[in-house]
Amino acid sequence: MIEVALFGAGRIGRIHAGNLVRQKGASLKYVVDVNAAFAQELASQHGARVADAQTVFDDPAIGAVIIGSSTDTHAELIMRAAAAGKSIFCEKPVDLTIERAQACAKAVERAGVACLIGFQRRYDPTFAALKSRIDAGEIGEPEVLVVTSRDPGAPPLDYIRHSGGIFKDMLIHDFDIFRWILDDEARTVYASGSCLSDQAIAEAGDIDTTVVTITTRRGRLCQINASRRAAYGYDQRFEILGSAGMLQAGNARPTEVTAYGRRAVSQDLPEAFFLERYRAAYAAEMAHFFEVLQKGTAPRTSVKDGLEALLLAEAAAKSFREGRPVEIGDARDGRLADVLAAVAAAAQ
Amino acid sequence: MIEVALFGAGRIGRIHAGNLVRQKGASLKYVVDVNAAFAQELASQHGARVADAQTVFDDPAIGAVIIGSSTDTHAELIMRAAAAGKSIFCEKPVDLTIERAQACAKAVERAGVACLIGFQRRYDPTFAALKSRIDAGEIGEPEVLVVTSRDPGAPPLDYIRHSGGIFKDMLIHDFDIFRWILDDEARTVYASGSCLSDQAIAEAGDIDTTVVTITTRRGRLCQINASRRAAYGYDQRFEILGSAGMLQAGNARPTEVTAYGRRAVSQDLPEAFFLERYRAAYAAEMAHFFEVLQKGTAPRTSVKDGLEALLLAEAAAKSFREGRPVEIGDARDGRLADVLAAVAAAAQ
Amino acid sequence: MIEVALFGAGRIGRIHAGNLVRQKGASLKYVVDVNAAFAQELASQHGARVADAQTVFDDPAIGAVIIGSSTDTHAELIMRAAAAGKSIFCEKPVDLTIERAQACAKAVERAGVACLIGFQRRYDPTFAALKSRIDAGEIGEPEVLVVTSRDPGAPPLDYIRHSGGIFKDMLIHDFDIFRWILDDEARTVYASGSCLSDQAIAEAGDIDTTVVTITTRRGRLCQINASRRAAYGYDQRFEILGSAGMLQAGNARPTEVTAYGRRAVSQDLPEAFFLERYRAAYAAEMAHFFEVLQKGTAPRTSVKDGLEALLLAEAAAKSFREGRPVEIGDARDGRLADVLAAVAAAAQ
Amino acid sequence: MIEVALFGAGRIGRIHAGNLVRQKGASLKYVVDVNAAFAQELASQHGARVADAQTVFDDPAIGAVIIGSSTDTHAELIMRAAAAGKSIFCEKPVDLTIERAQACAKAVERAGVACLIGFQRRYDPTFAALKSRIDAGEIGEPEVLVVTSRDPGAPPLDYIRHSGGIFKDMLIHDFDIFRWILDDEARTVYASGSCLSDQAIAEAGDIDTTVVTITTRRGRLCQINASRRAAYGYDQRFEILGSAGMLQAGNARPTEVTAYGRRAVSQDLPEAFFLERYRAAYAAEMAHFFEVLQKGTAPRTSVKDGLEALLLAEAAAKSFREGRPVEIGDARDGRLADVLAAVAAAAQ
Repeated sequence: MIEVALFGAGRIGRIHAGNLVRQKGASLKYVVDVNAAFAQELASQHGARVADAQTVFDDPAIGAVIIGSSTDTHAELIMRAAAAGKSIFCEKPVDLTIERAQACAKAVERAGVACLIGFQRRYDPTFAALKSRIDAGEIGEPEVLVVTSRDPGAPPLDYIRHSGGIFKDMLIHDFDIFRWILDDEARTVYASGSCLSDQAIAEAGDIDTTVVTITTRRGRLCQINASRRAAYGYDQRFEILGSAGMLQAGNARPTEVTAYGRRAVSQDLPEAFFLERYRAAYAAEMAHFFEVLQKGTAPRTSVKDGLEALLLAEAAAKSFREGRPVEIGDARDGRLADVLAAVAAAAQ
Repeated sequence: MIEVALFGAGRIGRIHAGNLVRQKGASLKYVVDVNAAFAQELASQHGARVADAQTVFDDPAIGAVIIGSSTDTHAELIMRAAAAGKSIFCEKPVDLTIERAQACAKAVERAGVACLIGFQRRYDPTFAALKSRIDAGEIGEPEVLVVTSRDPGAPPLDYIRHSGGIFKDMLIHDFDIFRWILDDEARTVYASGSCLSDQAIAEAGDIDTTVVTITTRRGRLCQINASRRAAYGYDQRFEILGSAGMLQAGNARPTEVTAYGRRAVSQDLPEAFFLERYRAAYAAEMAHFFEVLQKGTAPRTSVKDGLEALLLAEAAAKSFREGRPVEIGDARDGRLADVLAAVAAAAQ
Repeated sequence: MIEVALFGAGRIGRIHAGNLVRQKGASLKYVVDVNAAFAQELASQHGARVADAQTVFDDPAIGAVIIGSSTDTHAELIMRAAAAGKSIFCEKPVDLTIERAQACAKAVERAGVACLIGFQRRYDPTFAALKSRIDAGEIGEPEVLVVTSRDPGAPPLDYIRHSGGIFKDMLIHDFDIFRWILDDEARTVYASGSCLSDQAIAEAGDIDTTVVTITTRRGRLCQINASRRAAYGYDQRFEILGSAGMLQAGNARPTEVTAYGRRAVSQDLPEAFFLERYRAAYAAEMAHFFEVLQKGTAPRTSVKDGLEALLLAEAAAKSFREGRPVEIGDARDGRLADVLAAVAAAAQ
Repeated sequence: MIEVALFGAGRIGRIHAGNLVRQKGASLKYVVDVNAAFAQELASQHGARVADAQTVFDDPAIGAVIIGSSTDTHAELIMRAAAAGKSIFCEKPVDLTIERAQACAKAVERAGVACLIGFQRRYDPTFAALKSRIDAGEIGEPEVLVVTSRDPGAPPLDYIRHSGGIFKDMLIHDFDIFRWILDDEARTVYASGSCLSDQAIAEAGDIDTTVVTITTRRGRLCQINASRRAAYGYDQRFEILGSAGMLQAGNARPTEVTAYGRRAVSQDLPEAFFLERYRAAYAAEMAHFFEVLQKGTAPRTSVKDGLEALLLAEAAAKSFREGRPVEIGDARDGRLADVLAAVAAAAQ
């Protein structure tokens, strides 16, 4: 039996709790949240206790922690969990800064604990099946990846101000998809963007629409188009052209009803937002975490994946600011390299 | 808290148990199965106890029973549960004979307990959404219903021999869909059929393929086509033409991958069989049962629905044997009426 | 060069003329129509002359006639053309009576001329491709055919009064599809029907909605559902279940636009009516006719096919009137047999 | 009656001839081709004469010329036709050099003749319907356009060597789609590319795969992905996100057959290549040309459109060579501006 503590009793925390208690050999012991009422309600529902972080890290019975609290707490909790020898499941992103994300990676490595970063899309049944079919050679050599990633609407401005910007907040998922699906690394990143839906977003220092081009070390090409607002809902698709064919990953729909009316033949819009669309993905992700813990295998979405996606987000943001393609060499060897060196020095 | 006993620890019993323990205010107390090992395993997983039927009915703490045991046990368990004042969730069919099904209906009525019959298709998200849209008037007056119902492959011959025949075993679901979707009753039933996939099925006294026509009291028309074997899997669709449009209920697929290969553009086959296809339906059905228990509302699939579907199955079998349309008046006033009268007399 | 005369300068006549003049080795010489203005306009457009029927049949240069005039003229024109040794392309139906249709078949046989009946659906690219794939064994043995056939709206009442009824007017196409796709003949026919869209149709002695069941000599099953009115347009689909798979023939759409709006994802309605839907079929049908003329092969839709479809329509009408399945033996041996014998006697 | 001369009796010339002779008020008088046999065959089929260019331009009866000969002849024929006062229908591209294309535009303007450039995609029923729906405001303000453009296979190397490169040869169509659909002009163009299918293409100085990003003057974004080789055939799609919805233009298929086999549900591949896919577009384009001639309206695809698309192709090629986004200001004001100035000077 693996006893687990959950940080964060909000929307995503409740999803993780529900999936956790269905795992054989798992038991939810503590819920930690700055909002005592939320923590208490979730703890009651699953027969767990409310606790503070120190209690969790001090309790030798706790084998794993699930970090679903706010982004600014991730890095510290990862480092404390690693220091306490707890296995870690942490929502993306690791952190909004390369430095701290790098420090987390080091801490995890030093402690030798499992650390899964919640890029839940990799566990989506459609995306995972598509990846398996590429790996099985169905489309030959992958050549071009086109990713479409649109939210149903922009979050509140206050969220946007602290989100790290569209590249770290939204596209970080798409950068992870890129690395995973093409099994390749970026050579250059070029990002253009605009603020088209609401000028208040521009005033908050962000954009709402972006198109990104990535060229890879192996000469492959990737295009991402993302928007914070699609009038018709949540739109998460990609397609990959290979030398022997093409695979598309489409949206799931709530139902399979087709209506023939006087003006058109129509079907359901895609699932409303990420909690609905990725319901099965969150369940599979948690099952994978316990498989990792029970079998000792490496997590499919590691802290290094979290770091690399963040690096691409930084590079895209730089490209957008400077209006030119950024060599990932640039990113590593220039400003980011300095930072990474400093982090490395500090970590020794 | 409603304490519940589960009869049947097989495949469907495990599905019901998993859905049951997720209901707020529900607790699984007993598991009953002739196979002690099955019962023990399922009871352990959910913190319940193994018991025999008498213990269940004698325990005043038990508020509801879930009957997922073999068909020949349904009627007796329903009648004992009703007599003991327990609420009932019973897998379809109520029974293979009109007489006993009728007796169950009487017993439930006399006891005044809730009794939900497991026509899970009514709880399928696609089917349920379509029904709501008809009820909202989207297609005007319903006129023609076409139901397609195909299993991926025939069950073992031994199952077929005791199944009551294709009309009671397979089409009973489709007869229930007919009554529910059209909100109307049959006036005539005409069934044709053949044994096309395996002559052993004919030797077992059954057919594997049938087409049924139903005319309704309000002049509407229904066609059902059913087969025990579809090479491509489990196929459960229907479409309804109305005066102002048409609605189709399609199959769900495991993933939304579309593949462009050298010869065709392809997508996943439908979900493999009923446990996969109706996963969400089983969950919604159990949630509905607890809603019925907690709010005191009538179940959406009552013991009367079970009886009426069985009556249509009898009428279809008679039509097939006699090669002519059967008036439902015939069925009620002829052989079946005698039977029903006898049952009624015996019940007084 | 084959010189051709066209009877009928209405809507379908113009379609046939346009397809005819694109055939290599074909030349339109005469247009015949009771409406002189229509005849003149069509003749002018294609450099042909207006003529009367006698001129056509007397002109030894005419190799073939195309009969697109009103139904009540078909039989006489076929018989006169056959007598004059002209090859024949005639719109369906051959005639509304078995007797006259039979007489046409005899006349064609005696004259030894080619006679193609315009069951254009067999030439539809979708239907024809599906048939080829069945013939190539893709779905193994065909078992169940489900045909959906709906018009966008009922024709004028005056048309309905002279149409021969829904079975001869609309379902004759579906009966031909049945015979062609299953490559089998009917053993029994059972038809139910209602008048649901407009009571004036009932007063005109017809119905607007029907469902038909056919069992075949080889034990296969066919269901047809047809309606004179579908609010969403013209709907012409079928699907065939075989021992190794299933094939569906869907509707064509005017465009491949998909729209994601605030309420649904929508696509075009099917092509509006038969002229649009079967545009390619009419072209292929005419090309086939000239192939028949130039290569001396048998037409894919013969006068016998016209007669057999009419026989099924009669049987369906009888079944509907009598409320029971009609054995095709009945039809041939009973009233129809008498008729056929009389026709045969008269023809000697 | 407008008498017409056709230059080019190859594949596309035959398509144009077939569409031309169906126009009311049009007559094909001359066919011109360096291949005498091709010219003779096409002329015979349509009752036209073989002639040389001089005869065409000297014949005052000729009202319009259709230029479907090889690319290197376009500019000269346009200029000669303009000088002779003939209306012009010319296949894309106007020319492979900005200078000569510019000169053509000037010549056409000076002569005041109609000149339609054969960007046939704008006449495709799907693309044209989508554009009308944007114009009708269905998706609000257009924001992001994603264009997918893939050929079934690379042309012969000899063709590639003289094609002007992938940007002028393939993407010129996509650049035209961009300008038309967004009704906006490029501010920057960024192109990346690779040679992935066949190294011989790289040796011929070209690439086979490219992704292009365009930002517009109004802040909109466009991504194009193009490949000279898709294993599954010809793939021509685009989608446009707007403030109120999204529209997708999909591929057409040869048939609407859906097959359910043991492994997948499959449909036809897209139409094989441009002649099949754009069959209706070529017909509509020719009809539009005669509408322009008969009504005196402006052609929907003008010589200016040809010039602007070529400019984008040059800019994309420059971006690809230099590895950076090209400001269209750059293009016009830098090398291209010099060229354009020289052309302008020369033209005075």
